[in-house]
Amino acid sequence: LQCEVLAVGTELLLGQITDTNSAWIGARLAESGIDSLWQTKVGDNHARIVEALRTAVARSDAVIITGGLGPTQDDITREALAEVMGVELRRDEEVLDRIRTMFSSRGRSMPESNARQADVPEGATVIEQRRGTAPGLICPIGEGRVAYAVPGVPHEMAEMLERAVLPDLRSRGEVTTVIRSRVVRTWGEAESSIAERLGDHMRELDERGDRAPTIAFQASGIEGIKVRLTIKAPPDEADAVLAEEEAVVRGILGDIVFGVDEESMEHAIGELLRERGFCLGLAESVTGGLVGSRLTEAPGSSEWFRGSIVSYDSEVKFDLLGVPRGPVVNEATAEAMARGARRLLGSDVALAVTGVAGPAEQDGQPVGTVCFGVDVQGEVTSSTVRFPGEREMVRQFAAISLLDALRRRLLGAPAPARRG
Amino acid sequence: LQCEVLAVGTELLLGQITDTNSAWIGARLAESGIDSLWQTKVGDNHARIVEALRTAVARSDAVIITGGLGPTQDDITREALAEVMGVELRRDEEVLDRIRTMFSSRGRSMPESNARQADVPEGATVIEQRRGTAPGLICPIGEGRVAYAVPGVPHEMAEMLERAVLPDLRSRGEVTTVIRSRVVRTWGEAESSIAERLGDHMRELDERGDRAPTIAFQASGIEGIKVRLTIKAPPDEADAVLAEEEAVVRGILGDIVFGVDEESMEHAIGELLRERGFCLGLAESVTGGLVGSRLTEAPGSSEWFRGSIVSYDSEVKFDLLGVPRGPVVNEATAEAMARGARRLLGSDVALAVTGVAGPAEQDGQPVGTVCFGVDVQGEVTSSTVRFPGEREMVRQFAAISLLDALRRRLLGAPAPARRG
Repeated sequence: LQCEVLAVGTELLLGQITDTNSAWIGARLAESGIDSLWQTKVGDNHARIVEALRTAVARSDAVIITGGLGPTQDDITREALAEVMGVELRRDEEVLDRIRTMFSSRGRSMPESNARQADVPEGATVIEQRRGTAPGLICPIGEGRVAYAVPGVPHEMAEMLERAVLPDLRSRGEVTTVIRSRVVRTWGEAESSIAERLGDHMRELDERGDRAPTIAFQASGIEGIKVRLTIKAPPDEADAVLAEEEAVVRGILGDIVFGVDEESMEHAIGELLRERGFCLGLAESVTGGLVGSRLTEAPGSSEWFRGSIVSYDSEVKFDLLGVPRGPVVNEATAEAMARGARRLLGSDVALAVTGVAGPAEQDGQPVGTVCFGVDVQGEVTSSTVRFPGEREMVRQFAAISLLDALRRRLLGAPAPARRG
Repeated sequence: LQCEVLAVGTELLLGQITDTNSAWIGARLAESGIDSLWQTKVGDNHARIVEALRTAVARSDAVIITGGLGPTQDDITREALAEVMGVELRRDEEVLDRIRTMFSSRGRSMPESNARQADVPEGATVIEQRRGTAPGLICPIGEGRVAYAVPGVPHEMAEMLERAVLPDLRSRGEVTTVIRSRVVRTWGEAESSIAERLGDHMRELDERGDRAPTIAFQASGIEGIKVRLTIKAPPDEADAVLAEEEAVVRGILGDIVFGVDEESMEHAIGELLRERGFCLGLAESVTGGLVGSRLTEAPGSSEWFRGSIVSYDSEVKFDLLGVPRGPVVNEATAEAMARGARRLLGSDVALAVTGVAGPAEQDGQPVGTVCFGVDVQGEVTSSTVRFPGEREMVRQFAAISLLDALRRRLLGAPAPARRG
């Protein structure tokens, strides 16, 4: 079963909005075992939408069209579908009622323009709208081909795709294989070095051929190097193959792995602190609050996070944290900051970071120089790293590196040979 | 002049990477007065890349192909271009030397696979690589048509587009009109209310027809409502029209406008503090450090930002900031936090935020309740807002609202009627 994706909207071509829908739909199709070989973007132009739809259904079994279902005159997906189907649009009274009800439930009357959203090509099935005012459409076209229309608003699109489009697509063909992947997340080693360590294993997988998982690398900057394991297999086998492969890769890479898929470094830190019953305090300088902000993104951090002293101005380091007066980009300062934070915040563990994000050097230290302090129940260690890149990159690298330093301290693991 | 964009890579179709290149290229083409009516994505498949290229040059003057220039076997853009041009690939010794030099300058020898990146279709012109190892290509095809190949890595692509592709494209046709836009950024009012206030003006613009600017709204969540002014005009007129239109829109919207284009709320705050010679301290709870992190993203914040007391745990609020013991999600706490921060950090101005990000209610207050405190030289005010949405949304809304509260205090502007 092959399904194309067609994103409609002049604002997409002009780059005023980045089309993220197509990538999301592509991922869900792959996970559902449906091939998606073409993705196209066109503007709000009747002739070109019609041409794109005709091209798509000529070479694929199905097409998902996203966007152009709004109430304004340049929302013309309905008209284009009717033309490709060779039918007329008819106003659906039930759909119209539902749109009116949506407005009245918000204490407003429906603007006349929204009535267009109740226009349905003859022979099409309506996908009930639950989040916005635009219903979706399932449109049979010619010999067993089908076009699905869904809104362009991402969360409305996603809800409709899961509820109606994917089930309908799956019912049209037997799914024999799906594409699934799992991301093993690492910090502390360069891509080339990881690739080298996995080289022998990757050659083995290559020799096993089509039924074996594949490995690809994604350098994700501040998120570290991601090792993506992908398998194309029958649905009931895919997860087991990935689990086995994850174990092999973890075995080879060791303690640079801090999580899989959506498990962030913050998640890893939270788990380690919770297991040990430790609470955490911070003293941030160059990161300005970024580390605390990241740690508190996920619920549950209140169990182990006390707070942070953001001492951006050196006076705050001296007066509040008790750092001795003098230059502040060095390991002694990082250690004093960590001690000060643990004392002021009453925590078991404290982390501190001071450095130079740029644009200019400071205390004779070049841009990118960052010092870390880690205080675990009074035992303080420190380290210094020089990061490449510009201001925001340095800050982000500093934040994740600081957390990784704690992760390694708590695991009793040595410092990494190289930072990625 | 019409130019399509073709993004190549199976990982794009699978949604493992979101194609941001096409949107960026589309924006630069529009700003350069070049129409881009089609954008297509295909996988690493020879037949389909060839088909997509043939389709593109049949209906447009030019096509920019991004991706597929890497060193591995699935990077086949060079081969596809040669087929469409009807020529052979030839290894370019000069290009090969440059790749070798890039490796040796990093103390490594060139892997044999990278030699493929020196393969050039006969008759194509090489665009010298400056950031990565892959050169770009300018490939004449048939009757005056042209295909440009650029790498898929965004910063390599962008540099090559600006340096070689856009100048070459511009030399091929006279640019008579360009599309430019300017974004007026607002905080504190709902989209529908802004649309209503601009209604009469928008009708006037409509009546003036094609030569008048257009206005569109973008609800950007935590970035507020963006009012986008767009003009299609001769290059030497466009900026003047936008400047005039910006003045009109600012006149109508008044103090909800905090900046244009890339000017963030942080930027506005920095300007106001600098003008007054004030320095700023924070006391953050629910935001966990987010406000400080945002304020220090831009260089120059060290001139006016002292630091932040992130008092995530209530004990830190009581012990360090001197908040009276008791429930902590209320205006009295926000005021006490602001006073405490001003005292501890020695600042002229202090901001405080306490609230409930969820998932569960706290102190009998529902998720989304956030209290703000503003202390300007000892004069303290506070306010409470209930935000919709989930945890991260509440935190982000809280951060920008806190900064907007200070902006209004410093401007002497009243609180907004409604928050967007």
